[in-house]
Amino acid sequence: MKYLHTMVRVTDLDASLRFYRDALGLEVTRQHNVPAGRFTLVYLAAQGQPEAEIELTHNWDPEPYTGGRSFGHVAYAVDDIYAACERLSAHGVVINRPPRDGRMAFVRSPDGISVELLQSGRALAPAEPWTSMPNVGTW
Amino acid sequence: MKYLHTMVRVTDLDASLRFYRDALGLEVTRQHNVPAGRFTLVYLAAQGQPEAEIELTHNWDPEPYTGGRSFGHVAYAVDDIYAACERLSAHGVVINRPPRDGRMAFVRSPDGISVELLQSGRALAPAEPWTSMPNVGTW
Repeated sequence: MKYLHTMVRVTDLDASLRFYRDALGLEVTRQHNVPAGRFTLVYLAAQGQPEAEIELTHNWDPEPYTGGRSFGHVAYAVDDIYAACERLSAHGVVINRPPRDGRMAFVRSPDGISVELLQSGRALAPAEPWTSMPNVGTW
Repeated sequence: MKYLHTMVRVTDLDASLRFYRDALGLEVTRQHNVPAGRFTLVYLAAQGQPEAEIELTHNWDPEPYTGGRSFGHVAYAVDDIYAACERLSAHGVVINRPPRDGRMAFVRSPDGISVELLQSGRALAPAEPWTSMPNVGTW
C-alpha cells in the first residue's frame, strides 16, 4: 500500500497554480487535459518528493465549491518558514496564522483549502514582522 | 519542502480506526492525547512509507462535520485491489465505486471522507463479484 495524492477541486486553474506553484513553491509533476470529460488534472509535489502529490481537479463547467469541517488541511515542512511566508505574501496570499513562534503558519488556497507550513527541525528565533502580526480569519 | 500529512477530523475515533487501520490497512505511526486542548491526534501511514501520513483529529467535544466539494479524496495504491475491497467489505464498508475494471475503487470513511484505491501497476483481470456490482451513492 502506498500513499499517492490528496485531491482538491479548483475553480480557477491559473489562480490555483499561482498559489500552489508560484507562492507555495510546489512543482508541477504532470498535467492531463481531458476534453471528453471536460476537466483538467494538474499534479504538484515538493521538489525531490514526486511520490506525494496534490491533485488539482479543474472541472471546465463551473460548480460551487464549499469547504467542510471534515477535511482539515494539507501540511508541508519548509526549510525557512519566514522565507516561505514572505513569498506567499508577495503573491498576495493572506497569512491567516503568521509564524509568530518561528514554527507554524497557515494559509488558504484560492478555494479555501487550508495549508499548514511547519518549520523543518528546530523553530526559528522569533522575528518581526511576524512576531507582532495578528491572526486573520480562520484556517 | 516536504509533504507531511493530510488532516481530517473524525467524530468517532474507534470507528475511524476500524476504517483507516483495520479495514483500509494503514498503520498507526503515533498518537497524541492532549487533555489541555481536549483533542486526540492519531497519525497513520502505509507500511514502509511513514513520511506520508494521514492525521485524524478527534475533538472530544462533539461538533458537526460536513463535507464540501472543494476537498476531493485521499488516494492510495494497493497491491491487490480485490483483496483490499474484500477486507473493506468484511468490515462493513460500502464499496461506493466497485473495482469493475480491476483498477479503481472508492469508499468513504465514517465521516464521509472519500478514499480512492488504485491497483498498483497493471489492472487486474475483471472478476466477479466486482464486475457486476453497481455503484452505490457518490464518492
